[in-house]
Amino acid sequence: MSGWDPWFAEQRTARENAGLHRALRPRGLGEDVLDLANNDYLGLSGHPAVRQAAAEAALAWGAGAGASRLVTGTTTLHADLERELAEFTGREAALTFSTGYHANLSAVTVLADKHSLIISDAHVHASLIDAARLSRAAIEVVPHNDVAAVRAALAKAGGRRTIVLTESIFSVLGDAAPLTDLAEACEEHDALLVVDEAHGLGVVGEGRGLVHACGLARHPNVVMTATLSKALGAMGGAVLGSAALVDHLVNHARPFIFDTGLAPAPTAGALAALRLLRPELPAQIHQRGRELAGRLGVARSAGAVLSVPMPSARVAVEAQAMALADGVRVGCFRPPSVPDKVSRLRITLHAGLDEERWARGVDVLETVVGKVS
Amino acid sequence: MSGWDPWFAEQRTARENAGLHRALRPRGLGEDVLDLANNDYLGLSGHPAVRQAAAEAALAWGAGAGASRLVTGTTTLHADLERELAEFTGREAALTFSTGYHANLSAVTVLADKHSLIISDAHVHASLIDAARLSRAAIEVVPHNDVAAVRAALAKAGGRRTIVLTESIFSVLGDAAPLTDLAEACEEHDALLVVDEAHGLGVVGEGRGLVHACGLARHPNVVMTATLSKALGAMGGAVLGSAALVDHLVNHARPFIFDTGLAPAPTAGALAALRLLRPELPAQIHQRGRELAGRLGVARSAGAVLSVPMPSARVAVEAQAMALADGVRVGCFRPPSVPDKVSRLRITLHAGLDEERWARGVDVLETVVGKVS
Ligand SMILES: Cc1ncc(COP(=O)(O)O)c(C=O)c1O
Ligand SMILES: Cc1ncc(COP(=O)(O)O)c(C=O)c1O
Repeated sequence: MSGWDPWFAEQRTARENAGLHRALRPRGLGEDVLDLANNDYLGLSGHPAVRQAAAEAALAWGAGAGASRLVTGTTTLHADLERELAEFTGREAALTFSTGYHANLSAVTVLADKHSLIISDAHVHASLIDAARLSRAAIEVVPHNDVAAVRAALAKAGGRRTIVLTESIFSVLGDAAPLTDLAEACEEHDALLVVDEAHGLGVVGEGRGLVHACGLARHPNVVMTATLSKALGAMGGAVLGSAALVDHLVNHARPFIFDTGLAPAPTAGALAALRLLRPELPAQIHQRGRELAGRLGVARSAGAVLSVPMPSARVAVEAQAMALADGVRVGCFRPPSVPDKVSRLRITLHAGLDEERWARGVDVLETVVGKVS
Repeated sequence: MSGWDPWFAEQRTARENAGLHRALRPRGLGEDVLDLANNDYLGLSGHPAVRQAAAEAALAWGAGAGASRLVTGTTTLHADLERELAEFTGREAALTFSTGYHANLSAVTVLADKHSLIISDAHVHASLIDAARLSRAAIEVVPHNDVAAVRAALAKAGGRRTIVLTESIFSVLGDAAPLTDLAEACEEHDALLVVDEAHGLGVVGEGRGLVHACGLARHPNVVMTATLSKALGAMGGAVLGSAALVDHLVNHARPFIFDTGLAPAPTAGALAALRLLRPELPAQIHQRGRELAGRLGVARSAGAVLSVPMPSARVAVEAQAMALADGVRVGCFRPPSVPDKVSRLRITLHAGLDEERWARGVDVLETVVGKVS
């Protein structure tokens, strides 16, 4: 027992009193639940060809990359994945990382330092917020999706190297960013727009992401980051942009240089998933999104996340438990994890799921949401 | 072309002029090189049982965890690995992360905030330095392995929550930290000692790490972090300590909460490696370390990294190329990646490698080092 134990206990009591304490609940193999909480939007994590590719990579290459990518941890698997990711998204080059978190930390910290300005949308992901902090740049948070506010902040940059942070499809509310306008504003001020496509890749623009859909794939002021852990069903992250940017990352990104390379199995899994990604898959997500939004009486979403506002945090937790009791797992967001203090069910749409299971899921959710609204 | 391109070009020229520019060189399957640069110290990444376990996990569970550990990304595989890691190292509980980098970022940022003091050994790893910055705590860097300096800094903490950062076996020089003295100093001042066992786990104390070897496994002031990417041959990281610490991490560590869980294949690979870890493996590392240090005329190391000082950065690069031409890959550290500005060959010792290949490697290295010294 150290003097820290009372502090841990205090923190826990505070969480419990606020109804915010959380614990891990391991799921077993062959659990019979319809999982509409995970981000495996296209169902590719469990696709036979993806499983097989991951397994074969583990057998052929071993369980790990063995060292930093710069030492001996770069394999031809990484090179193949990087080339095909760049091709698919229409960008000049790509670099993969162990996680999407590492990708965001890296992109921001190699572009901004204590002399720079970072203009950040109020809703960006924790990894981009941590990245901005780590860079030591001055940070200006602007209201969500407010291009005028971004322009006003850019006008005050005064010669500082400036980057603007946004997501393409936002992770919590599922709405889209005004990328074309943001890119134009950045171009005028010679700022870089860093777009996190974690929830855009595989989901919008026939799967190629919102940057591509907006015709910005070759825009020199746009840097794209992505994860391999959501629509691509594996794990890892990527930064996509010019070859000069990738070269700069390889030489300066600490979370790339001082980290062991992404393991063979998830690298090969992501590559196999990318090769399976055809426009029919995201199309099915959008069709199911329209259907479910209609049945639940909520707004359609731009991506694969349907966000259902709940009257209170308590009701959100109750609704989640009711759905699970009926075999459907959904996510639940409560303050402080939501930017606007509105508790929500977070339901992820899934392609690849068979019609019958999907129809049952929709029925269960309609009943649950009807009961608590 | 954006206004940033000249800046990227300038940075590249500066690196090239300083002889510090680096590029990725992918290795292929079946490359016939003796790799003494990677950190797969026990040869477990490619052990048949480890490959098999990773492959089976990918087939059974899919290529990814699908979501954050707190949503639906925790599987019974994670729970098994965490239980066995804690048992093996003698700690009460363990939590795994996507990378060792995430583990360090998490451990430090949940313990320290802007009101805290972090006392950091001058040689700690980039991930601990980034973690300290991210925490916003006051940071006091003390000379390497200087317990008196740590004590002096602790004496000036003045009631602030204080943590001390060290590695057990340091990654560059391969020397060991005075853990017993550091833990005693921390206990007296009610500080926590965060020990990064990235290069200790699997290598010292019959593989259980230096914390265990020093009898500190149940010390209430000691927090241990580790990677699954080195001696365990896979990828990922861990924080090991009290159950209260793990509970606190699950609820507050942003690089845990806002990151997709470690993929099934590396999770199962690390677990299989842990189950294969017997005292004979680290014993072979130490025996080979004595042999190689003797042949090269350098100091023995505490762990699996043998550090060979070179007269200059240029000579270090030349020696590395000569060894590679003879089929032996070693690492090379040059400023600014070395804490003391001395360029070095970094040779990793390997158990599991057959005697003949090892003997050939030793011969090649002796010749190369003899030529350049
Ligand atoms: C918007 C966004 N960016 C980045 C990440 C981090 O990606 P990863 O889980 O691959 O670390 C996530 C989710 O985890 C996310 O939702
Ligand atoms: C001392 C130390 N800590 C942490 C890490 C990070 O571990 P990982 O590669 O699993 O991210 C490394 C090396 O990569 C290391 O050498």
